[in-house]
Amino acid sequence: MLKLFENIFTQKTRGRIFVLSFLALIIGQKVFASVSTTEGHGASMTLMWIAVILIIAKIAGLVEKFGQPAVLGELVMGVILGNLFMVGIDVFEPIKHDEILRFLSELGVIILLFQIGLESNIQEMRKVGGRALLVAIVGVLAPFILGAYMVGPWLMPGLDQTAYLFLGAALTATSVGITARVFKDLGKLNIKEAQIVLGAAVFDDVFGLIILAIVSAIATVGAVSFGIVSTIVFKAVVFLIGSIALGAIFASRLGKFLSKVHTGVGMKFTLAIAFCLLFAYLAGLIGLAPIIGAFAAGLVLDPVHFRNFKAPKMVLDVRKVVNNHIREEHDDVVLRTEMNKVIDHHSHRHIEDLIEPIAYFLVPIFFILTGMEVSLDTFSNPNILWVALIISVVAIAGKYVSGYFAGDVNKKIVGIGMIPRGEVGLIFAAIGKGLGVLNNDLFSVIIVMVILTTLVAPPLLAKQLKSM
Amino acid sequence: MLKLFENIFTQKTRGRIFVLSFLALIIGQKVFASVSTTEGHGASMTLMWIAVILIIAKIAGLVEKFGQPAVLGELVMGVILGNLFMVGIDVFEPIKHDEILRFLSELGVIILLFQIGLESNIQEMRKVGGRALLVAIVGVLAPFILGAYMVGPWLMPGLDQTAYLFLGAALTATSVGITARVFKDLGKLNIKEAQIVLGAAVFDDVFGLIILAIVSAIATVGAVSFGIVSTIVFKAVVFLIGSIALGAIFASRLGKFLSKVHTGVGMKFTLAIAFCLLFAYLAGLIGLAPIIGAFAAGLVLDPVHFRNFKAPKMVLDVRKVVNNHIREEHDDVVLRTEMNKVIDHHSHRHIEDLIEPIAYFLVPIFFILTGMEVSLDTFSNPNILWVALIISVVAIAGKYVSGYFAGDVNKKIVGIGMIPRGEVGLIFAAIGKGLGVLNNDLFSVIIVMVILTTLVAPPLLAKQLKSM
Repeated sequence: MLKLFENIFTQKTRGRIFVLSFLALIIGQKVFASVSTTEGHGASMTLMWIAVILIIAKIAGLVEKFGQPAVLGELVMGVILGNLFMVGIDVFEPIKHDEILRFLSELGVIILLFQIGLESNIQEMRKVGGRALLVAIVGVLAPFILGAYMVGPWLMPGLDQTAYLFLGAALTATSVGITARVFKDLGKLNIKEAQIVLGAAVFDDVFGLIILAIVSAIATVGAVSFGIVSTIVFKAVVFLIGSIALGAIFASRLGKFLSKVHTGVGMKFTLAIAFCLLFAYLAGLIGLAPIIGAFAAGLVLDPVHFRNFKAPKMVLDVRKVVNNHIREEHDDVVLRTEMNKVIDHHSHRHIEDLIEPIAYFLVPIFFILTGMEVSLDTFSNPNILWVALIISVVAIAGKYVSGYFAGDVNKKIVGIGMIPRGEVGLIFAAIGKGLGVLNNDLFSVIIVMVILTTLVAPPLLAKQLKSM
Repeated sequence: MLKLFENIFTQKTRGRIFVLSFLALIIGQKVFASVSTTEGHGASMTLMWIAVILIIAKIAGLVEKFGQPAVLGELVMGVILGNLFMVGIDVFEPIKHDEILRFLSELGVIILLFQIGLESNIQEMRKVGGRALLVAIVGVLAPFILGAYMVGPWLMPGLDQTAYLFLGAALTATSVGITARVFKDLGKLNIKEAQIVLGAAVFDDVFGLIILAIVSAIATVGAVSFGIVSTIVFKAVVFLIGSIALGAIFASRLGKFLSKVHTGVGMKFTLAIAFCLLFAYLAGLIGLAPIIGAFAAGLVLDPVHFRNFKAPKMVLDVRKVVNNHIREEHDDVVLRTEMNKVIDHHSHRHIEDLIEPIAYFLVPIFFILTGMEVSLDTFSNPNILWVALIISVVAIAGKYVSGYFAGDVNKKIVGIGMIPRGEVGLIFAAIGKGLGVLNNDLFSVIIVMVILTTLVAPPLLAKQLKSM
């Protein structure tokens, strides 16, 4: 049986794996169904669902073999699982109603934004400077105005004003994760265009989160007023700038202090994760989305704050061998320098390495559950499909024009690099649905837009990069 | 202010930190109280509680500075937090009723047993061989018979038979984690006595888990019968032997197969964690405790099953530098060998390193919440305190005698090394309370016994090891 699977993989007809997976799914339903009825204990079932979701997410990640980001596969898989009930397979329905899974999914997106914050570096962003900021501003304004005030009301008249605002907001997002991964996969992470796109994507995150805070507040309070908008912008800016300033002043002292309490890896991890969770909580407390807090916490924390803690065990081991065995001759100086570079790099990355398993554990739960929220039966109305396609074109055009403000570089690469919406767009859609602002139709439209923009960018970008 | 704290630490009067922490706790109550009332959103509160629990657990871990294992500090801190309401501080009470925290705590102990399973090695256990097995059998039988059939009924007459059985079961545990940490802290992990204690502790885990399964089943069904006992032993043995056998046959093929789907670190992590959760779920399904499944999953998984996956990034980087720069002269061969040892070691440890952050995140929640279950008001009855002390003496004596079966080694070291009950004893107590078998008095007695046995071993062991 395993030999059979291996043969399928060594052959190039990998599409078959999907057919087989689907068959396994249908056969498995019988087993699952009997299991679900015999075992009523909630917590134990949740253990199983976590395992099932993680495995399914990894199978969905197979789309990477076709040059697509894993997040896209997880999302599409979520859509499939969430709609299998329409063909009589209702074994996955309990996932939708599991409170603990819902919490783990929320925690997952908090951890994801924390990771993005950790990877973003305020100093780095300064270098790419004004150009990235300009690209980001155009890339936010163009799709927002197009979506919220022009195409949205034109295509779907009669909805609440806040619904259009959420549509516009979802169109502003740029996924740092996906954008970076595309350049990285193609080995072009260091070209100037990539740097501008990454810088702009980070600015985009900040703008996007402010916009999200504004539209969320409008949705909650129910009206657009200059007072509300300026309060939100004020809160968000004060929170972000304030936490960054406080971080610059206190984080290193706090790190130093806690490292005197204990220098272990556990303390290092706890310092980081507690920062993330408390910032998320505080953001929620003053009316911002918890993810903004998590992102700010990631921005604030810097490798330097952890320098007094123990390096990873491997770094210590390698350093010991280097110190014991490398003599200080000419040639060995080169080796010593190279080895010290590796040691330094991994000492600094350590905190990100510690957070990564938590992300492996929780982030896929968010994407699968978000995908499951999409109800395909809204597409029984072909109009919705057309709307989704037109909105997707607007989403692509709105970001593409931003490339023309990138200065003396290949403008097409920058423009295309800005297109994928990824997880940030999904977060907007999920929050909008949670607030009751987005109806099923508009939610599905946004999901299709996210899928299409995320799908279309990698091949287009690859083509441009190869013809440079 | 920070300077003040630092001075306190550089001075040797570290006890003051506890006084200060306590003051901070009382002052902090005002802030927390206002926060709890203004923010009703459950999930957001849970985020804060997780952060608070993790930070408090780390502060409690300060006991390590006094030569005590961190787990002891977490437990005592939990007891303090859980009983602050008696002096009018009720800010931590919501933790006791939070469903999500309860789930995370259960998940924490599952991850802990998975870790212990991963660190245990079936091949290693064979070497220490018969002696360790004999020590383990005596170390399980002596305290069990003393507790369940003699001292328990004598000290607390009139309780249900199953309550005595649970008391006896809790007395059988030996903490691999604590035992290993004590030897390690004292730099004596490789002496023969340490090997025997570690081997016996692993056997103890397996016996203990079988005993736990038996007494749990008796508690659920309500009667002791040969049929039930033999069914449980059969199930447990079949499950453990079966999963180990299946693991030996299939785990490496499964690893090989999944590594063809994707060789990334994420897949490696998912394979391990899904194994753990599914085994935990299956154990629960056939009537065993989920932790038995998690332990079995850890035993089954072996570094070799992950050899087709990518090594950690740092291993790849170091290997690259080694290959590029080390010439094959005599002296460099030594360096190359040493470096390859480091590379090998950390490639193998990688899966444990990936699970560790999950444990940092979830395990302290289990110990703090378990400590919070102890109600100190049961000690208003001084009899309970006396009972706890006598039971603790029995617990210590019952393990100490097992050392006399260790053969031609320092018998005292083995005997003392077996004393700490640690997390396994707590798990027994928690399950017994959850099943309604242990009343508050008996639960508190067991917790005190766990605390005392864990507290008494490190200094006694240190004394013996220094006089060797």
